[in-house]
Amino acid sequence: MRIDEVHITPVAFRDPPLLNAVGVHEPFALRSVVEVVAEDGTYGLGESYGDARHLARLRVAAEALRGVDVWHVHELARRVRGGLDDGVGGHGMGGMVTGSSGADRVLSPFEVACLDIQGKLVGRPVSDLLGGAVRDRVEYSAYLFYKWAGHPGGEPDGWGEALGPDELVAQARRMVGEFGFRAIKLKGGVMPPEEEVAAVRALAGEFPGVPLRLDPNAAWGVGTAVRVAGELAGVLEYLEDPTSGVAGMARVAREAPMPLATNMCVVAFDQLRPAVEVDAVQVILSDHHFWGGLGRSRVLAGVCEAFGLSLSMHSNSHLGVSLAAMTHLASATPNLSYACDTHWPWKAVEDDVVVPGVLRFEGGAVPVPTGPGLGVELDRDALARLHERYVACGLRERDDTGYYRRVCDAGFDPVPPRW
Amino acid sequence: MRIDEVHITPVAFRDPPLLNAVGVHEPFALRSVVEVVAEDGTYGLGESYGDARHLARLRVAAEALRGVDVWHVHELARRVRGGLDDGVGGHGMGGMVTGSSGADRVLSPFEVACLDIQGKLVGRPVSDLLGGAVRDRVEYSAYLFYKWAGHPGGEPDGWGEALGPDELVAQARRMVGEFGFRAIKLKGGVMPPEEEVAAVRALAGEFPGVPLRLDPNAAWGVGTAVRVAGELAGVLEYLEDPTSGVAGMARVAREAPMPLATNMCVVAFDQLRPAVEVDAVQVILSDHHFWGGLGRSRVLAGVCEAFGLSLSMHSNSHLGVSLAAMTHLASATPNLSYACDTHWPWKAVEDDVVVPGVLRFEGGAVPVPTGPGLGVELDRDALARLHERYVACGLRERDDTGYYRRVCDAGFDPVPPRW
Repeated sequence: MRIDEVHITPVAFRDPPLLNAVGVHEPFALRSVVEVVAEDGTYGLGESYGDARHLARLRVAAEALRGVDVWHVHELARRVRGGLDDGVGGHGMGGMVTGSSGADRVLSPFEVACLDIQGKLVGRPVSDLLGGAVRDRVEYSAYLFYKWAGHPGGEPDGWGEALGPDELVAQARRMVGEFGFRAIKLKGGVMPPEEEVAAVRALAGEFPGVPLRLDPNAAWGVGTAVRVAGELAGVLEYLEDPTSGVAGMARVAREAPMPLATNMCVVAFDQLRPAVEVDAVQVILSDHHFWGGLGRSRVLAGVCEAFGLSLSMHSNSHLGVSLAAMTHLASATPNLSYACDTHWPWKAVEDDVVVPGVLRFEGGAVPVPTGPGLGVELDRDALARLHERYVACGLRERDDTGYYRRVCDAGFDPVPPRW
Repeated sequence: MRIDEVHITPVAFRDPPLLNAVGVHEPFALRSVVEVVAEDGTYGLGESYGDARHLARLRVAAEALRGVDVWHVHELARRVRGGLDDGVGGHGMGGMVTGSSGADRVLSPFEVACLDIQGKLVGRPVSDLLGGAVRDRVEYSAYLFYKWAGHPGGEPDGWGEALGPDELVAQARRMVGEFGFRAIKLKGGVMPPEEEVAAVRALAGEFPGVPLRLDPNAAWGVGTAVRVAGELAGVLEYLEDPTSGVAGMARVAREAPMPLATNMCVVAFDQLRPAVEVDAVQVILSDHHFWGGLGRSRVLAGVCEAFGLSLSMHSNSHLGVSLAAMTHLASATPNLSYACDTHWPWKAVEDDVVVPGVLRFEGGAVPVPTGPGLGVELDRDALARLHERYVACGLRERDDTGYYRRVCDAGFDPVPPRW
């Protein structure tokens, strides 16, 4: 069953002013929706970053993939590699993560779309193509952000300002109330570490027994990271990327009382060995968008099992296609032992490209779709709307730092360590 | 599609008196043929060891697997683990390899059989379920053995005695002539190292440019291994298990001019990290029979790619079901960069359980079967014949050492290092 057509549609959806170590989310998040159509008309969906350079690479790959059998993922990968440029830029991560594999980033949405088609052809959910779901619902984590009340010059969003512990606790209360999350993550690296420690302690007081995580996106130096880790002993289930680089993480890991997690210093297969050799991290946050799709994410899970690393899952701002793919993958990954990250609560319900109804949160978890393939269908009117918004919004690269400089602080320097 | 029935049939086939570091092959090799039948009557095949303790474990697992969906490999694995005893013994390797995972050994034939069923249901070869064949023929290696002319008290087999370089060269000439192999492996650890060096040199002289390997099955001490490795610089593509254990292999690896390969000191996922940490081996010989099946062998391949290890493939005496499974796996493993091992030439053509015709050697390679599933069918008359031979032969455990002691040298001590 060969690939007949590939459509790549850049889309934009509204995004609140969420603060992080390198700046602030712009008013629109960019994504690409990949539709692969097989010769019998069966279509499969993938979702990836929307940065212009990434889009250009997706389009080069799309041309090369016509005629490949949808079961031949190794051949997809070979052709993607064959057409790849230097891989620089277009990471879709606002500069926070730059070491991922260009080939794996480009392969990912096509591989997911082909698995979607395979599942539809076989009449099986994608989870079955990954060895079968070992859980019928996948737990996600609340994802708290320091944020402004609204984008400068715009209306306040419904979530309100959150710049201190009390507001973050309120944010958490609402998010946990609406979605039922049973784990909580705070995006840090925004305020001086002592303020973030106070925020985490406030959350711990409000949600006793709920696993907490803090992710300063490598904004801290080693000394700061070691000190903060010590202050949060017994409070965090893991501390995520407290400092930058494998060497720095290894130094922190030797002192930190909790496991260190990463989606920054180990983001590609060739970065695993150096990290393992110095025991830099204890938890890998997998992400099929940059680890090369669902099949290669299974390999990553196998590496983690073999090498005694724990496994969690990272998220960027995303739509329903990615939520479906993440949920299938997580359901079929036995050694995934933490609730997965998701930015889902920050997206307006009506801003999506999949037909509503399949994806829902119950008690902090998403029931694994049981229909063939990913189990979600493309809403072509919604896709057209979000594409129009992409055209109209003018954004072509995620640039949290540039936006922060324009609207808030022209001299802002995100180069770590900030503290 | 659920598992309805599981049949496990021990079989025996004639085996020549092939010498190795722990003794000599007995007159019959034991295997188990696993047949999984789905609720719609579709059957799938697997093949594994035939040792009594392993058979008992397969039977326990078979009971536990009824009712599991053939796509739910994670659930297969969970149930296999749940029913497992201490995992001691029944390795099917004559004592040469004892560190493999009992759970993975037991899972393997059931997983292969379920992939066979999946492929039949989907109308796709198993290679497609593994990401698609990247080569349409899989290269195998000639596998030379020191051997006696025949089993004591029996007729000479057709291959004749091989106890020195000239006879091994003659053996190689015949095997390469009949099968077209383009790589040659000598099973060593039988004669004093200098004799084996002379044999390898004779082979190199007779087959210039043909990749050569020597496998003494850890019969040498570190000093001997380092010396022999030096003597064979530029002659061997890799040296396989020259000494025992990760620590010893690491010491040899630091001095050896060629890569070291293993199917003895790294035979399970939890042995990868210790080996990587001391750079003990450069080539892993995968073997789906003890690495948990084809899916987990893909994970092993991913580990090798990520950690900069090369990948080859190990073999025991086996029948056509295993040859088909090995060929599908090898075809869909892009980073498999060596010709695979196989004992195939040592088996009589008529001693098999699959319907003849699909599996054949052309130019040293097996064309990847293209029919649904493994692409081979069970010959039930042949299965019955080989089972009768199992019943009649009286062998219940592979015991190369015991046989050697009985027929040749009661005081034989295979405990390494022998040299």
